[in-house]
Amino acid sequence: MTDPATYEVDFEPIGKRVLVEEGVSLLAAAQAAGVHLSSTCGGDWGCGQCQVIILEGQVSEPNSNEKFILEAEDLAQNRRLACSTQVLGDVKVHVPKDTLVTGQRLQVEGSLAPLRVDPAVAGIEIETDAPTIQDLRSDLARINAAISKSTGSSVGKCLPSVVSQISAVARQESWRVQAYLRRSELVGISVAGDPALGLAVDLGTTKIAAYLVDLQSGETLSQVGAMNPQISYGEDVISRLKYATRSVENQRLLARIVWEALNELASELVRQTGQHLNQVVDACIVGNTAMLHLLLELPVRQLATAPYVAASDLAFDLHARPLGLMIAPGAYVHILPCIGGFVGADHVAMILATDLDHSQKVRLGLDIGTNTEIALVKPDVPYLSSVACASGPAFEGAHISDGMRAASGAIEAVRLTDQGIKLRTIDDAPPVGLCGSGIVDAVAELRRWSLINTGGRLQKENSRLRQGRQGMELLLASASQSGSGRDVVISQEDINEIQLAKGAIRAGLEALLQATETPPETVEEVIIAGAFGSFLNIDSACDIGFFPEMPNAIFRQVGNAAGLGARMALLSLADRERAQEIATHTRYIELTTYPNFALMFARGMQLPPDDRLKIKY
Amino acid sequence: MTDPATYEVDFEPIGKRVLVEEGVSLLAAAQAAGVHLSSTCGGDWGCGQCQVIILEGQVSEPNSNEKFILEAEDLAQNRRLACSTQVLGDVKVHVPKDTLVTGQRLQVEGSLAPLRVDPAVAGIEIETDAPTIQDLRSDLARINAAISKSTGSSVGKCLPSVVSQISAVARQESWRVQAYLRRSELVGISVAGDPALGLAVDLGTTKIAAYLVDLQSGETLSQVGAMNPQISYGEDVISRLKYATRSVENQRLLARIVWEALNELASELVRQTGQHLNQVVDACIVGNTAMLHLLLELPVRQLATAPYVAASDLAFDLHARPLGLMIAPGAYVHILPCIGGFVGADHVAMILATDLDHSQKVRLGLDIGTNTEIALVKPDVPYLSSVACASGPAFEGAHISDGMRAASGAIEAVRLTDQGIKLRTIDDAPPVGLCGSGIVDAVAELRRWSLINTGGRLQKENSRLRQGRQGMELLLASASQSGSGRDVVISQEDINEIQLAKGAIRAGLEALLQATETPPETVEEVIIAGAFGSFLNIDSACDIGFFPEMPNAIFRQVGNAAGLGARMALLSLADRERAQEIATHTRYIELTTYPNFALMFARGMQLPPDDRLKIKY
Repeated sequence: MTDPATYEVDFEPIGKRVLVEEGVSLLAAAQAAGVHLSSTCGGDWGCGQCQVIILEGQVSEPNSNEKFILEAEDLAQNRRLACSTQVLGDVKVHVPKDTLVTGQRLQVEGSLAPLRVDPAVAGIEIETDAPTIQDLRSDLARINAAISKSTGSSVGKCLPSVVSQISAVARQESWRVQAYLRRSELVGISVAGDPALGLAVDLGTTKIAAYLVDLQSGETLSQVGAMNPQISYGEDVISRLKYATRSVENQRLLARIVWEALNELASELVRQTGQHLNQVVDACIVGNTAMLHLLLELPVRQLATAPYVAASDLAFDLHARPLGLMIAPGAYVHILPCIGGFVGADHVAMILATDLDHSQKVRLGLDIGTNTEIALVKPDVPYLSSVACASGPAFEGAHISDGMRAASGAIEAVRLTDQGIKLRTIDDAPPVGLCGSGIVDAVAELRRWSLINTGGRLQKENSRLRQGRQGMELLLASASQSGSGRDVVISQEDINEIQLAKGAIRAGLEALLQATETPPETVEEVIIAGAFGSFLNIDSACDIGFFPEMPNAIFRQVGNAAGLGARMALLSLADRERAQEIATHTRYIELTTYPNFALMFARGMQLPPDDRLKIKY
Repeated sequence: MTDPATYEVDFEPIGKRVLVEEGVSLLAAAQAAGVHLSSTCGGDWGCGQCQVIILEGQVSEPNSNEKFILEAEDLAQNRRLACSTQVLGDVKVHVPKDTLVTGQRLQVEGSLAPLRVDPAVAGIEIETDAPTIQDLRSDLARINAAISKSTGSSVGKCLPSVVSQISAVARQESWRVQAYLRRSELVGISVAGDPALGLAVDLGTTKIAAYLVDLQSGETLSQVGAMNPQISYGEDVISRLKYATRSVENQRLLARIVWEALNELASELVRQTGQHLNQVVDACIVGNTAMLHLLLELPVRQLATAPYVAASDLAFDLHARPLGLMIAPGAYVHILPCIGGFVGADHVAMILATDLDHSQKVRLGLDIGTNTEIALVKPDVPYLSSVACASGPAFEGAHISDGMRAASGAIEAVRLTDQGIKLRTIDDAPPVGLCGSGIVDAVAELRRWSLINTGGRLQKENSRLRQGRQGMELLLASASQSGSGRDVVISQEDINEIQLAKGAIRAGLEALLQATETPPETVEEVIIAGAFGSFLNIDSACDIGFFPEMPNAIFRQVGNAAGLGARMALLSLADRERAQEIATHTRYIELTTYPNFALMFARGMQLPPDDRLKIKY
């Protein structure tokens, strides 16, 4: 085997150069060169932001993603997506100003300062003697003495299950081991030198994201996702809460299946990285208030009925194993605090990750999901304000005739052209249905092409539309083209569902701005978090009237900020304190009793008039 | 109904008088008068110590217990047992000097200073407002605020299960409740005014004793006992440890059945006292090292094999419910520390209860049981010394042909007379078998009447003995007299079993005295604890050579001192610290490797020669 060839990539006008191996993407080359290209999707072919122009040299041919996102004209002028273009020789690249990260369109993880690392648990290598008839100290006393000798401070306590681990591992390792300490508590031991790891979890209503983090370096070693298995017992929060209130067994079941899912994710994470669960000595979980209540088997009846109060919105530090999370025997789980019944720890984590609490600007932060939380921060106001909107699961593809989750074959982008319809699907697979961003895109295109009016009604007579079973509809892919063998359409009902969903968010935004006396034009930044939010086409969102007119606002899509916040709190005791500060100092505005909210909602469902549409592709 | 008549009892020569109702025992009258009569058994007809002489007045006729313990001659001279004699008119009583408590022959609970009350958990009554749309604080935040307002200090944390209790109880009680606090942790809530209770447990290899204690007054409200259900899986410690090491399931089972037994005892205690389990907000458990290892599912393999080290001998503070003890949702269990692999927390508790660690005399403390622990304390020596003897279950009636536990019909005392055999049985029921004290009594009587020699061998030719199936034997009750319809005998093998058991204890005592350079004549006090110990006839124990000659020693039988120690530690954080001090400052002497221990054991099995026998009744 010969080593792959190495080529130089020259980024202009910055003038940075880097040597990379053949086949590396221009995006990876830019990262290696320290050139920060805008890329919300992180190289997943999702956002189309990493556009560059090839000035000289050999690169790969345009792929399907580039052909979808870029116009033929652009491609002809060597405009390419850095994520989709491989280096095949020495290359000179021009980075347009729009593509360079300037602090305005950022990925959270790139823009934030390095993660603060002051973890709750640290590892220490110790060695001691085996018991003899002259030295009959108990196993625990023996290990504790070795720790005290090494650290100079005494060990206070530990769980019996940690003692069990000591007796087994210490003998197997001839009394030379790694001890993991949480302040004065011994939470586990392992083979000498094994690094201390932590598990961070963003527990969503629909999806669970889990991260394995090195507690010493702060590095994220691996990340995996899974569906929340509670979905089988209710797709939305309220139906799940109702299921739980029906019996103690129901409530126990909902908790148990999530802990089982977390155990599977933790096992997968350590498997991927060649580590083992005994090294996972700390965990941090964020989620919305209802998900955390269900996870901890907290009472939910009062959360599902007016005035909708949480049983607890405080942070918890609990031993993991009695809860059902089978990581290191003495490990704790830190549960981040919530703000209220409908603004959870995931929102706190998002605020933490985006530094929203440390802002000197007027900023809005949105977590778009089945439940959408919005926070507003203003300089010189010592607290944040937040609302929660019941936006429903339409953005996750539910209640949409051909809706689906963001899986292979989901239509994630739609363009109407004079020649017909252009689609982009996940994995470039034959279209099967529409995921959230595709639905928003489709509705926006319908509006731009005046195929629907401001009320969302499809034209009765238009050759681009057809009569479906339940009224007019737009055919996106015919049975012969689709992956399912059935027509993929967007119907009048689907449009109405989207109007309801975006109406809830729009009304929440209006109420929040009004309640805080914040004129829309003073908003300087809008941060959009959440999985859906990061794939959302902002122009399309604006063109269906997601947002009030905020002419001075910059939009920033930050991906799973809650997951980042969970990792920050996992890694830093100071950030845990900050999370509690955020929860304490956020004023929750209840929308159900907000004056004229019903009217705001009705108005919010309207689509913008023609003169407000920004873009026609 | 007329009130019962009231009579005066005059105790001479002390000169104290008291008015009591008709039918009250002289022992109760003495207690009411503040006259402390010696009574190891506490009025249970067990010890025969509370002898008094009726000088004038009308009392009940002698009962079966008095006829058993007292000679006919004594009864003729109006010598009576205060516990068994009821007042039927004005009475003048003489209290012999031997019967008066002089600080030498005491019951522990009478002699000790009042229990120290500085409990870990305290109750506080609080009231707050129900949630409204204007006040959306979570249930926990609301309760915490009320506690902070009342106590002036903030509440830190609590378990999710406590939050569940809050949401239910606070609504039911209209937000006026009793909150139970363990430092800054909320461990439970209940109906306003409900006193905080605690559960103290002495977990023996054979028996479990449980106490319900008022954490504010220190009063023991109720006590109950039960067999340790692990007996089905091994009567002695070693066989039980072996069972546990065979599989994880076995070990889990042994723990689970004990927690279930403790739950039943706790339920019975609260039922008896009209309280409920939510009020049981703290618990304290003592037991030998092996029992605590099995209870907490600590590894036991290393405890069952040389050099027999504990996995942990430190104290534990653990949440009760995750362990399986279903008391108040946030309650903790405090597990007292152990001294070593074979000297457990029960021994620490005994030392605590008898103030052995605060001694200015040379004192021995014995916990006689399946495993017998002995501690020695000397003035000016800054630590205690202890040994553990594998005395076996013979004193609990096991391995004895007609042995049985101390239940109804068990022979607990035996006297040989010229006229035949006198027996005393528990509940005065027809004899069924022999319990520990009866076996010791029987062997002592055989030795006193020279029916066995110093080697323990029964005479071949003696009309009082008969040929049994396996050699000579003494018939105690024939089939026609017995409660079982079978002969009750004591056989040569039974005598050998008792010799083995007492030989182990005797050898342990000798080794302890030798190792600490303590001449037997310098021993000033011998404290005998444990259920068996309190029923043991000390004279009989001496006459079978339980103890070396300790001419200057006073014997003190203190009943279940471990149970008292458990209550002390339950009630007092200072006593928990003291228990840790005791555990830390006790030097364990391993007997298996002690020089010449085998010889000591062989010698210890011998019975005393004729000139050393003290008493022939």
